[in-house]
Amino acid sequence: MPEKPLLSELIDSLRCLPGVGPKSAQRMAFHILQRDRAGGARLAAVLAEAVQSIGHCRLCRTLTEDEVCGLCSNAGRDDSVLCVVENPSDVIALEQATGFRGRYFVLGGRLSPLDGIGPTELGIGLLRQRLEELSPRELILATTTTVEGEATAHYIGELAQERGISITRIAHGVPLGGELEFVDGGTLAHAFAGRRRLAPD
Amino acid sequence: MPEKPLLSELIDSLRCLPGVGPKSAQRMAFHILQRDRAGGARLAAVLAEAVQSIGHCRLCRTLTEDEVCGLCSNAGRDDSVLCVVENPSDVIALEQATGFRGRYFVLGGRLSPLDGIGPTELGIGLLRQRLEELSPRELILATTTTVEGEATAHYIGELAQERGISITRIAHGVPLGGELEFVDGGTLAHAFAGRRRLAPD
Repeated sequence: MPEKPLLSELIDSLRCLPGVGPKSAQRMAFHILQRDRAGGARLAAVLAEAVQSIGHCRLCRTLTEDEVCGLCSNAGRDDSVLCVVENPSDVIALEQATGFRGRYFVLGGRLSPLDGIGPTELGIGLLRQRLEELSPRELILATTTTVEGEATAHYIGELAQERGISITRIAHGVPLGGELEFVDGGTLAHAFAGRRRLAPD
Repeated sequence: MPEKPLLSELIDSLRCLPGVGPKSAQRMAFHILQRDRAGGARLAAVLAEAVQSIGHCRLCRTLTEDEVCGLCSNAGRDDSVLCVVENPSDVIALEQATGFRGRYFVLGGRLSPLDGIGPTELGIGLLRQRLEELSPRELILATTTTVEGEATAHYIGELAQERGISITRIAHGVPLGGELEFVDGGTLAHAFAGRRRLAPD
């Protein structure tokens, strides 16, 4: 008899998933074993292959199982605009919500010297190289508005400025449909200070 | 290039888990790939083995990778009390919460002729056999209070009654610490009708 039943082992392993506690893990394990063994088998196979073979795109550092990701290898994208984001999930969010047709660069984090995350960890060397190769007209900074995100944006902005590239930052403010009274103070102050003239323009 | 990126494949596969929608599946995939590949690899391996080799206990029908589960093979358990539950997760819940030291029998559902679940699907034949083998003094019915659960309890109760086994049903009523005003009407009516005399007893 094994030291630990396989079922407990499975429940334990499921807890590596974010937001999954002991109760959810147990529910997931029983669901798979009692109702969806085929789905479980497929998940096991895909997951094993994914952790094994998904790496980073050689050009933009997003997650992909190919050497160059689908977006970078797409010849129809506009080389003259480069959008810098923190995470691969940001690329998906922008692709789904915007009509952006340019290139991306994924930092994989933000500058945080205390956590040992410096320019090397964010692939700034590769970003320089991409700026040389693409020589974009515009660099869009889409990092977060945390202190580290702003520092990262500032750092990359300077890098681009040296090359005479025009730099933009995505707008931060009150979300669409957001009631002013429920928006946090920081966002509201930011939105107020960053107000735009409508007329006469 | 494959027809579908492995990352989308992984996000899709994660949706076989209960309560996991597109957003959570994406978050899980990125979490594993960016922060916990070791956990992901372990999950893949354990899951593959679990869907492959976890079956049902030959005696009580609970989920186990052995022929006979740990509870059934434990010689220290009391053969004179048999508790009938609907699901393997009920066994875990009872083991954790109660000091019950008897045997279990897992139906794997409840009688529901419309869904094609009859005595055969619930392993009633095996239950009869267990009643012969163990000849328990008491049979505890721990099925749910749904219409099907009650019908199942009634059916199994008759089976045991033929053999002169004393039959008990776990108590249903107001949960501990439950405020009466927030308890549903059915439970409250049940608890009121099933009130117990305290004094003189």
